[in-house]
Amino acid sequence: RIDGDRLWRTLMDLAKIGATPKGGLCRLALTDLDREGRDLFVRWCEEAGCTVTVDEVGNIFARRPGRNPDRPAVCMGSHLDTQPTGGRFDGIYGVLAGLEVIRSFNDQGIETDAPIDLIVWTNEEGARFSPPMLGSGVAMGVFTLDHVLDIRDTDGVRLGDELARIGYKGEVPVTGHAMGAYFEAHIEQGPVLEAEDVEIGVVTGAQGQRWYEATVTGRESHAGPTPMRLRRDALAGAAVMMETVEAIALEVGGDACSTIGRVQVHPDSRNVIPGRVWFTIDLRNPDPDALARMDALLRERLAAIADKRGLTLELTDFWAFPTTPFAPELVGHVRRSVERRGLSHRDIVSGAGHDAVYVARKVPTAMIFIPCENGLSHNEAENIKPEHAASGCAVLADAVLAAAG
Amino acid sequence: RIDGDRLWRTLMDLAKIGATPKGGLCRLALTDLDREGRDLFVRWCEEAGCTVTVDEVGNIFARRPGRNPDRPAVCMGSHLDTQPTGGRFDGIYGVLAGLEVIRSFNDQGIETDAPIDLIVWTNEEGARFSPPMLGSGVAMGVFTLDHVLDIRDTDGVRLGDELARIGYKGEVPVTGHAMGAYFEAHIEQGPVLEAEDVEIGVVTGAQGQRWYEATVTGRESHAGPTPMRLRRDALAGAAVMMETVEAIALEVGGDACSTIGRVQVHPDSRNVIPGRVWFTIDLRNPDPDALARMDALLRERLAAIADKRGLTLELTDFWAFPTTPFAPELVGHVRRSVERRGLSHRDIVSGAGHDAVYVARKVPTAMIFIPCENGLSHNEAENIKPEHAASGCAVLADAVLAAAG
Ligand SMILES: NC(=O)NCCC(=O)O
Ligand SMILES: NC(=O)NCCC(=O)O
Repeated sequence: RIDGDRLWRTLMDLAKIGATPKGGLCRLALTDLDREGRDLFVRWCEEAGCTVTVDEVGNIFARRPGRNPDRPAVCMGSHLDTQPTGGRFDGIYGVLAGLEVIRSFNDQGIETDAPIDLIVWTNEEGARFSPPMLGSGVAMGVFTLDHVLDIRDTDGVRLGDELARIGYKGEVPVTGHAMGAYFEAHIEQGPVLEAEDVEIGVVTGAQGQRWYEATVTGRESHAGPTPMRLRRDALAGAAVMMETVEAIALEVGGDACSTIGRVQVHPDSRNVIPGRVWFTIDLRNPDPDALARMDALLRERLAAIADKRGLTLELTDFWAFPTTPFAPELVGHVRRSVERRGLSHRDIVSGAGHDAVYVARKVPTAMIFIPCENGLSHNEAENIKPEHAASGCAVLADAVLAAAG
Repeated sequence: RIDGDRLWRTLMDLAKIGATPKGGLCRLALTDLDREGRDLFVRWCEEAGCTVTVDEVGNIFARRPGRNPDRPAVCMGSHLDTQPTGGRFDGIYGVLAGLEVIRSFNDQGIETDAPIDLIVWTNEEGARFSPPMLGSGVAMGVFTLDHVLDIRDTDGVRLGDELARIGYKGEVPVTGHAMGAYFEAHIEQGPVLEAEDVEIGVVTGAQGQRWYEATVTGRESHAGPTPMRLRRDALAGAAVMMETVEAIALEVGGDACSTIGRVQVHPDSRNVIPGRVWFTIDLRNPDPDALARMDALLRERLAAIADKRGLTLELTDFWAFPTTPFAPELVGHVRRSVERRGLSHRDIVSGAGHDAVYVARKVPTAMIFIPCENGLSHNEAENIKPEHAASGCAVLADAVLAAAG
């Protein structure tokens, strides 16, 4: 049994830090607001009797001891950072659902055999520091610590410096933390559960992603006296490329997705034909072959557009992970819980990347999804129902108990 | 007779202020570098015996007295500000050709009946403060002084504050300066003269322009779990609009031009489907009917794209001027000079806006074009031949003498 009201109050309390006028959150990783959120979370964990440690990349571990200190911890977690115009639940729900599991175990005097760790991973969104999932990535050996500490935001500020500045550059070695299992509860961030009126998504894995950066170079010249036929307009070419990126997902069909999230135009003057355009590309597909086909189409078609227009294209791989299945045994714990509780449910593949994707490389992992309003996330209007929050939290508690003994 | 070597040395001296590694200039209006350039120009004018005054919007007037102080001045001028990645000659050539005219008149003891004014207009480029041609615009009553002083750059800095800061907020009333004629020498900024191996362009007028700002609003959502068919992607829609803007100029044909120079994407995060995109549009045509057709096509087609994609489009008129003919009498002075000197020449319509366009609303006006390398301008590689610089300056001297008596 968990306390849904307490969970909701806790969510609303944390949503005050970095609240935006439109009802969302702007609490970018390693800002003062992120520190405030982390500090409040740490206080809550200590009040719940946990021992809190911080590792070298700022990941926070709150431990509730088990009977058997030698067993690797059964872990829950997610992230507290948000998009620039993010919602109140993306990541935060998973962390605070974990806190509610610990609080309710305390209330009910439940002891577990394995210790329980509640984890906050650093910079999951990839908004301020890119790519995403950096804290879990370093912990799982995907990135080196030095590489990640040296990543800079768009203002050139180093991740490592910000970590130290906000007081979350911990001492605990970032790799080698003994994790026996990892459960992450999260909002779906898509429309499937809501459309089918289903309370819980049993997440069987996450779709693959490929991220790129494209730089198109043409020739700057004057917007007036330069005839159309003599132009090498980097933006006119980039616009066609952007349309093509969209068309590739539509053409490949199924669950294929493509997104361009950032664009920079140089020199960015109204009466100068742009000489250079930089933009990001995000391709996703649960089917690895289809994702490879999207990648091939992207390279071929963008190069052809550049060629035809006398432009230069530099297309670089920025980040990628393959379609990632979760651990059947842990997914089974989740499934048994929803069945026993009589919650409506369906299997689902995560459309987003989560820290669980990197953790799954080293540790048996599963995720629990709850519906979100209009399938909307990465939007200030992101919203969930308190009863869904409570159901997901109860399933998390069951799954952790099943794994921790 | 003018001194082509001295003119070139003067151009090269001024090109040191704000020089870029690629051989161009970045001397944005009302920056410290603009001040440095203005200060050097003022010193040169005073050394040439001129009296220098500055008006309320920072336009600089260097006067060489005439025999008859009651006659309105015969004026020459252009601008000293540049694009962010601009060249060494756009605007600057016209100002320093004017200085060379005064210096050579001094050398030869030439007296004129009317006084001669050499004018530097504030913020012609429209790069830092938009729209272009602000100094001449206020002087000719196109904009009010208060409106222009209140225009802000992208960092929110007020034009009026920058004017005061660099010491060029003058006392002379900005309107009512007695101008009897205005000649502006300029590089063509396009490929026509070079392609036809012609030394001088006799400018009969300037083509019309219409500038717009477009804001496309969709719905922010997550780049992963949001299926393509449920997206309202402001950038995917904006990309099709940008392609359409290019297509309109190609379709209308002739001398039609269209350019998108600036784009801003919100929230500008790699894994967020953009909720809002802002971009600028610049349409040009020497034929007023064709420009009106381009305007109608733009409104119709952009609205249709927005409609089809469930996006909102706000298309606002930012700035415009109609096709502007210059004064036949003054154009005649230019034509007679090139004929008498045996310079190859052709009539040409300016593709760019110039301060001359606004001056022409109140004062008889003409322009003299010289070729530029590869027709390139608004580019750090902008270049001209010293002999063309000298020829254009000699024609300017002739035209001024003809008008000033
Ligand atoms: N959950 C989430 O928004 N993760 C960020 C990584 C992604 O874009 O999939
Ligand atoms: N000459 C020049 O670059 N003027 C700026 C206004 C325009 O873009 O036509």
